[in-house]
Amino acid sequence: MSASLVDAVAAPAAANARLTGVLAAALTPLTADLGPDFGAATLHARWLLAHGCDGLAVLGTTGEANSFSVAERMALLDHLVGNGLPAAVLLPGTGCAALTDSVALTRHAVKLGVGGCLMLPPFYYKNVTDEGLFASYAEIIERVGDARLRLYLYHFPQMAAVPVSLALIERLVGRYPETVVGMKDSSGDLANMLAVARAVPGFAVLSGSDELLLPLLGGGGAGCITACANVAASLAARVAAAFRAGDGRAAEDAQARLSAVRRVIQGYPLAAALKSLVATASGQAGWQRLRPPLVPLAADDARALARQLAGIGFATPAWP
Amino acid sequence: MSASLVDAVAAPAAANARLTGVLAAALTPLTADLGPDFGAATLHARWLLAHGCDGLAVLGTTGEANSFSVAERMALLDHLVGNGLPAAVLLPGTGCAALTDSVALTRHAVKLGVGGCLMLPPFYYKNVTDEGLFASYAEIIERVGDARLRLYLYHFPQMAAVPVSLALIERLVGRYPETVVGMKDSSGDLANMLAVARAVPGFAVLSGSDELLLPLLGGGGAGCITACANVAASLAARVAAAFRAGDGRAAEDAQARLSAVRRVIQGYPLAAALKSLVATASGQAGWQRLRPPLVPLAADDARALARQLAGIGFATPAWP
Repeated sequence: MSASLVDAVAAPAAANARLTGVLAAALTPLTADLGPDFGAATLHARWLLAHGCDGLAVLGTTGEANSFSVAERMALLDHLVGNGLPAAVLLPGTGCAALTDSVALTRHAVKLGVGGCLMLPPFYYKNVTDEGLFASYAEIIERVGDARLRLYLYHFPQMAAVPVSLALIERLVGRYPETVVGMKDSSGDLANMLAVARAVPGFAVLSGSDELLLPLLGGGGAGCITACANVAASLAARVAAAFRAGDGRAAEDAQARLSAVRRVIQGYPLAAALKSLVATASGQAGWQRLRPPLVPLAADDARALARQLAGIGFATPAWP
Repeated sequence: MSASLVDAVAAPAAANARLTGVLAAALTPLTADLGPDFGAATLHARWLLAHGCDGLAVLGTTGEANSFSVAERMALLDHLVGNGLPAAVLLPGTGCAALTDSVALTRHAVKLGVGGCLMLPPFYYKNVTDEGLFASYAEIIERVGDARLRLYLYHFPQMAAVPVSLALIERLVGRYPETVVGMKDSSGDLANMLAVARAVPGFAVLSGSDELLLPLLGGGGAGCITACANVAASLAARVAAAFRAGDGRAAEDAQARLSAVRRVIQGYPLAAALKSLVATASGQAGWQRLRPPLVPLAADDARALARQLAGIGFATPAWP
């Protein structure tokens, strides 16, 4: 890592900074026994920051975190921070099915000084009430009992199958205004994201869809947290930079390129496709591993994906 | 507990016995800080065995197990077995989102000598392939590496949102015929249960729906694992006993009564409704507690439920 990169990533966030801009939903490389590969994960995190990410949503859906135990998740986060990744740019996923697991992970992450925690609602029980979800988030916040906690709610109805409604957000922000500061919305529903951004001033709404980055920024959103940023962070960063500079034309051009990449990749299982691309870019076949129930991309699919991306002029940058 | 009950429940199951007949999806009573109440859970388990249950599916969906950490789940199982509950009649849930959690829970349960483990598929990632689910179950079985393991697959598409298909069952039974010995089917789809029972000889198919107990027994199924058995085990036991005795009329009468109870109770959130009934039967208000995201029944609903059950002539037996 270059000295300038060290400086850039080591700059501490202000106490009330929001994690905004472009965040990668970071992949978790695995060892041969399907545990987190701490060393490769650290290299990958540095590489993502060097390629335009403002922050890293580690240990989320794309990072296969829900397939890891609490101990495995803590160990990976310990390793990242212990090896110089600035905690303030990290947004680890800490929402589990079990209340006590969410408390343990969140408490641990806050003690490490992370910039925020991205929290799924408890996702096993379905058709639960907003009252029950409020009670769950409130119980976690109270048990963690740490004023440093910055919580980003995670709305992903297609995967969690437990939505986080605007009414629930308003109730949580009303009760914990210093703590509940943002959300990731992976619903793909721009109208919902814009409605939340309008209804809750100062609340950071981040899109889980690359294609919605620019429209969301234009509507008062805060940025994106996406899987494709694992290979295309620099494109997303160009969208955000051009938007901030008021260069609408450049922003739209970059968004069009980013969206094209996303449309190709989402034709495949996302984490498997992205790991296949990093495996090729790094020359490290181990990057193809996924923990069950996810499985690596079949060789034919990996070749087709590479061909399609080449066809739109996209190449994964050299790794690491 | 009476001496005869001690004898009855302490009888060890034969090495290859299947857990069949009537099993309760046992509720987990909670302490004031929302942890498992070990003492009350042990009393409840004994009470269920005394009221007609052949086995106890502890720490399942109804038992709120997915809201507890691995350590909390292990501690409750340790307590039950350590306080004289016969391990051979216990079928704890051990399937988690995280592979390593499922391995840890299953290994622990097998070491305690449980009759079997009821295993959800990993339930966070959706639309996964049968290849990925097979890899997950296989990895767990191999890592546990204990010939005593008896695995019951858990098909609950409405809650887990990850179905266990007949093709997957056949593949798992083909590879692990001594280990993968049964399933709980909570889909409510009798045709699916009968198809599995027909297609996989010797495989114990247990219904998660009280209403399907008799039809499933008639089609070669093994019994039921139900939430309502927490209060109506004796009715379910009468269905099974009459069926075994070849008394079709008595079986149908008991089934009609059981189904009527179920139809009333399922008009409410199931675990909350059942806890409310036990709270009333025991006079212990603490039984009403649930861990978020589940919430206790509102007082009005609890009264309405009691009224409806009284209206069909059903009363929860005295507890404990």
